[in-house]
Amino acid sequence: MRFFSDNAAPVSPQVLDALAQVNVLDTAYDGDRWSKELDGRFSDLFGTQVRALWVPTGTAANSLALAALCPSYGGIVCHRDAHIQVDEAGAPVFYTNGATLLLGEGDGAKLTPDAIRVVIDPIRADVHQIQPHAVSITNATEYGLAYTPDEVAAIGAVAKDRKLGFHMDGARFANAVARLGCDPADVTWRAGVDALSFGFVKNGGMSAEALIFFKPELADATLVRRKRAGLLFSKGRYLAAQILAMLDNDLWLTNARAANAGAQLLAQAAGERLVHPVEANEVFLKVSAAEAASLRALGFDFYDWGVGEARLVISWNQRAEDIRPLADAIAALA
Amino acid sequence: MRFFSDNAAPVSPQVLDALAQVNVLDTAYDGDRWSKELDGRFSDLFGTQVRALWVPTGTAANSLALAALCPSYGGIVCHRDAHIQVDEAGAPVFYTNGATLLLGEGDGAKLTPDAIRVVIDPIRADVHQIQPHAVSITNATEYGLAYTPDEVAAIGAVAKDRKLGFHMDGARFANAVARLGCDPADVTWRAGVDALSFGFVKNGGMSAEALIFFKPELADATLVRRKRAGLLFSKGRYLAAQILAMLDNDLWLTNARAANAGAQLLAQAAGERLVHPVEANEVFLKVSAAEAASLRALGFDFYDWGVGEARLVISWNQRAEDIRPLADAIAALA
Amino acid sequence: MRFFSDNAAPVSPQVLDALAQVNVLDTAYDGDRWSKELDGRFSDLFGTQVRALWVPTGTAANSLALAALCPSYGGIVCHRDAHIQVDEAGAPVFYTNGATLLLGEGDGAKLTPDAIRVVIDPIRADVHQIQPHAVSITNATEYGLAYTPDEVAAIGAVAKDRKLGFHMDGARFANAVARLGCDPADVTWRAGVDALSFGFVKNGGMSAEALIFFKPELADATLVRRKRAGLLFSKGRYLAAQILAMLDNDLWLTNARAANAGAQLLAQAAGERLVHPVEANEVFLKVSAAEAASLRALGFDFYDWGVGEARLVISWNQRAEDIRPLADAIAALA
Amino acid sequence: MRFFSDNAAPVSPQVLDALAQVNVLDTAYDGDRWSKELDGRFSDLFGTQVRALWVPTGTAANSLALAALCPSYGGIVCHRDAHIQVDEAGAPVFYTNGATLLLGEGDGAKLTPDAIRVVIDPIRADVHQIQPHAVSITNATEYGLAYTPDEVAAIGAVAKDRKLGFHMDGARFANAVARLGCDPADVTWRAGVDALSFGFVKNGGMSAEALIFFKPELADATLVRRKRAGLLFSKGRYLAAQILAMLDNDLWLTNARAANAGAQLLAQAAGERLVHPVEANEVFLKVSAAEAASLRALGFDFYDWGVGEARLVISWNQRAEDIRPLADAIAALA
Repeated sequence: MRFFSDNAAPVSPQVLDALAQVNVLDTAYDGDRWSKELDGRFSDLFGTQVRALWVPTGTAANSLALAALCPSYGGIVCHRDAHIQVDEAGAPVFYTNGATLLLGEGDGAKLTPDAIRVVIDPIRADVHQIQPHAVSITNATEYGLAYTPDEVAAIGAVAKDRKLGFHMDGARFANAVARLGCDPADVTWRAGVDALSFGFVKNGGMSAEALIFFKPELADATLVRRKRAGLLFSKGRYLAAQILAMLDNDLWLTNARAANAGAQLLAQAAGERLVHPVEANEVFLKVSAAEAASLRALGFDFYDWGVGEARLVISWNQRAEDIRPLADAIAALA
Repeated sequence: MRFFSDNAAPVSPQVLDALAQVNVLDTAYDGDRWSKELDGRFSDLFGTQVRALWVPTGTAANSLALAALCPSYGGIVCHRDAHIQVDEAGAPVFYTNGATLLLGEGDGAKLTPDAIRVVIDPIRADVHQIQPHAVSITNATEYGLAYTPDEVAAIGAVAKDRKLGFHMDGARFANAVARLGCDPADVTWRAGVDALSFGFVKNGGMSAEALIFFKPELADATLVRRKRAGLLFSKGRYLAAQILAMLDNDLWLTNARAANAGAQLLAQAAGERLVHPVEANEVFLKVSAAEAASLRALGFDFYDWGVGEARLVISWNQRAEDIRPLADAIAALA
Repeated sequence: MRFFSDNAAPVSPQVLDALAQVNVLDTAYDGDRWSKELDGRFSDLFGTQVRALWVPTGTAANSLALAALCPSYGGIVCHRDAHIQVDEAGAPVFYTNGATLLLGEGDGAKLTPDAIRVVIDPIRADVHQIQPHAVSITNATEYGLAYTPDEVAAIGAVAKDRKLGFHMDGARFANAVARLGCDPADVTWRAGVDALSFGFVKNGGMSAEALIFFKPELADATLVRRKRAGLLFSKGRYLAAQILAMLDNDLWLTNARAANAGAQLLAQAAGERLVHPVEANEVFLKVSAAEAASLRALGFDFYDWGVGEARLVISWNQRAEDIRPLADAIAALA
Repeated sequence: MRFFSDNAAPVSPQVLDALAQVNVLDTAYDGDRWSKELDGRFSDLFGTQVRALWVPTGTAANSLALAALCPSYGGIVCHRDAHIQVDEAGAPVFYTNGATLLLGEGDGAKLTPDAIRVVIDPIRADVHQIQPHAVSITNATEYGLAYTPDEVAAIGAVAKDRKLGFHMDGARFANAVARLGCDPADVTWRAGVDALSFGFVKNGGMSAEALIFFKPELADATLVRRKRAGLLFSKGRYLAAQILAMLDNDLWLTNARAANAGAQLLAQAAGERLVHPVEANEVFLKVSAAEAASLRALGFDFYDWGVGEARLVISWNQRAEDIRPLADAIAALA
């Protein structure tokens, strides 16, 4: 009955099992055999040579990626509602030693080439104003929209033209790829993305995300920064194992498809109430305070999202029979 | 046969079990019921009101503690061989936004009041020189020595007199307390310690350490810094659970006693070869390169420690019968 | 014929003379007798005990002030068009070790209590969002408006209520006070201001601004930060002397009145073309590209300010007869 | 009668005159004609294409140079007694966003290739230890010794071999070159130096040093950092003019030769009392507390330098007849 966050869901049993399987003596830090598999496994997945680092949180992944792409005195273009701007307590500033987020606009937390140009074109090319060095988008966005390969590629073209590094916050990358049905490469490096925060924790993982560098040379300094940030776990194999478990048999896609499907159940029930199209596992509804209260009185738990809106998030483990009662209750509101 | 690091050891079964037990839906971040237990459980253990935060690594615990005790422009007195100086890639500098470690001397990586005064007395009280704001000691030290309550209290008196914050790196705090047989309070807050990095990972944990503030008011800004550093896990209950499992039935002491006892087996065999007294779970031996090679030829794995020395570390899960062959081999060297 | 910046103007002869007068051997840094006069001279001027530090630039003054008022993880509310946001290359971020500017709206670059509340009220009081710790306003504003004592006091009340430090960027403080005709105290500490960047360089000085702390206890750490930033001149007396020369016989007011009066000449000529009321020494005009070109063809030099606007700045040394030709040319545009 | 610091001396009349000569309207910041001369003038002086930036203090010059040569997570090898370590309040840490100074030994504050290797050879090439990225030497050293071209070149060879940036703190570069009688190129870029802090303030200047990049590509980001640090003076021509005045007719060498010659007068009088050879304008003497008191009773002013030593510094404007009484008093001590 709880729909307030995919962060609150439990962990996939395969992930827990993986922890038990690596519970043997091995080398410390990231020298163990499982951590060493990551580069290869993700290179296979993306069809190109990548470097892949485990990190414990999405905020850490995003911040390390941005630190690899932007100097301390630079600017990073992102959407005004981006997680890196709104919900990370300034972590990107901390990790970059002072970079500034330059905020763009767009429906559903989605940037476009035009929105980016609106931000960067007025910046004078002098030492008084902060110069843009990178752009960061979130896929799926904070409002549950999926950027298509073409949309990403259009931003990638701007990034290339303006010499901006290009980061993708993929806290719900699995949900985006599940929606798009595309090759993960098409929506990342083939579209110009340099670094991807590949999220697992919201999708059945416990405490491991992958930071993927499509420009492998960006990884070396990042390894140092990861240690310097206190993120180099002495028993790294328990992070690597989680990620490998999520990759095995495409569990990441299976889980994401399940969550996305659940969201579609709510979307169909919500109809005109939808604030945004439902393309991943988040549903934003227009509901009055009284309607929200009536849903809560039925035992459904969710966040208000500004005035007159509610956010419902479906987790990987919520089955149709768990969701149907909420869908029915929403349909019955009218 | 591997004695190179307690970081390489597996995790206590109770810790793995605890992960399964919290594998249910709960609130995200540190709002869950297990995370909320930490303040109380550690307050009970220490016999005073504390604030206790989970963090994933000892480096993170140390750095957050130091950031709470020292401004960006300040200095932190520590031993030249302290982990924060030698093995954390400058993490204390990163978290404090620029503080400087001021290095003291002492046998076995142990600071004394005199050693601290040698560092700070020559510093002119002006704006040109970095002024000391904190002192940090490691207990047990990097060479396996345990500071006694009296030794800590003597340093605490200097800290109080000079208005220095006082941090203890307790990566092997359990081993120190197991050795000392004292109340944990006696070697911490009663001796003037303001913040303790209470380590579990080297002692059977997986990925959770506790940062303890004996001055509770230091915790609030630290909660912000923890988030800003990307260390606020969205599923924090899997960290809290590990720590609670280590506290249950004093597992932390049981594990540490086992490791310490194993180290004593080696110490007895080593006799005159010991570089330092063995007071925790680390044994430093004088061995020639040929002797080291002969031990390795027998299948024993360990680190050289400078020229003519070797470091042997006993983990919580190594039993007497695992250690005896090495002890015999050492005794047979002569 | 150049009206593009008061930064481009020469230095008052009294300031140059003062450099010659202190060109004797004295103690280094800020231990000389002139530097030591600053606290007293500014305490007299403001009618309360202040601490006053010389710094070489307004950016340095602003950044040091903000570093005294906001922690690295905090937010500083300022206007979207504030100099600290637009023209300081992120210096406030650098000096605070990472604070974030939170941008408000308002005509003429002027903040109001309501505009501040629009920024800070939506911020959730949690560790995920950057919490406001300070507010900064510019007086006169970047568009040449003067905050009255009542307007400043209204913001001061919000700052006090929300426990925000309160900084005033007074790059053109002299012009504001000259306009207002008020006691400098009324528009600063009596209205709740904690720290003032008191500018002289745009007003006939060469390379010295004063950073005034109305809370004297904020000065001590700032002295350290000033040194750490490489701003503690070894021959500080040449900065102190400039400031003292500006205070002598109220030269700061004399110069500002002259510049303000010149701006009024233009304002009268401009009539309906004015974008903002002219309250200090800056005049913003609506002019077409053709009109701007025609003015430039007559030899007048100024900056375009966005599309269809121009900025004209009067310096302390521009006399009525220097300005009249431009006023006439503007009047003749219609 | 004051010999405690060349920072306390007055300014050369040519420098004051230069300020008056540029006291006309010109473009702000560093766009004026004098600032634009610097690259060319220093390129001529050094016989190679350089970039030259004015900065107000030696600390700023050193810190900006190091920020260009070392990342935030890197280490900078310098002498334990280097000004950047002892007397800059951590400014290099601040400007580099966290780099660590790695301290070497050597008589008279002089580093050697061997001393550098003692520091860097034990550093494990892993992410746990801070890796060296740069080396910084001071010429003349903090104890008044001049590195010869060969000595610098030997360090330059180490730097090249280990891929370390190479910075020279030349707060008393003029004194070193005056002593060596060499082409300034021989002791800088031809010997491998990448960046030089070329000091003028101790040598008759007022508030302008030059930061010289022999690798011109290092200058661009430094221009941004200079602004971001609040060091981009709006009236930069008053800095440029000082430097140009010091270069005109080799005033920098004339002044330095005068100071060096004065120091030789003391050196001859001191004989066996000298702690270090006198190669620049500083003289370090062994004197008992009673002897120091007797000199002070005669009206001579100087700093104690540790126990049993005194530092005497000769300034550019002290003539033989000013110094002779002190020389006589020293000779008379025995």
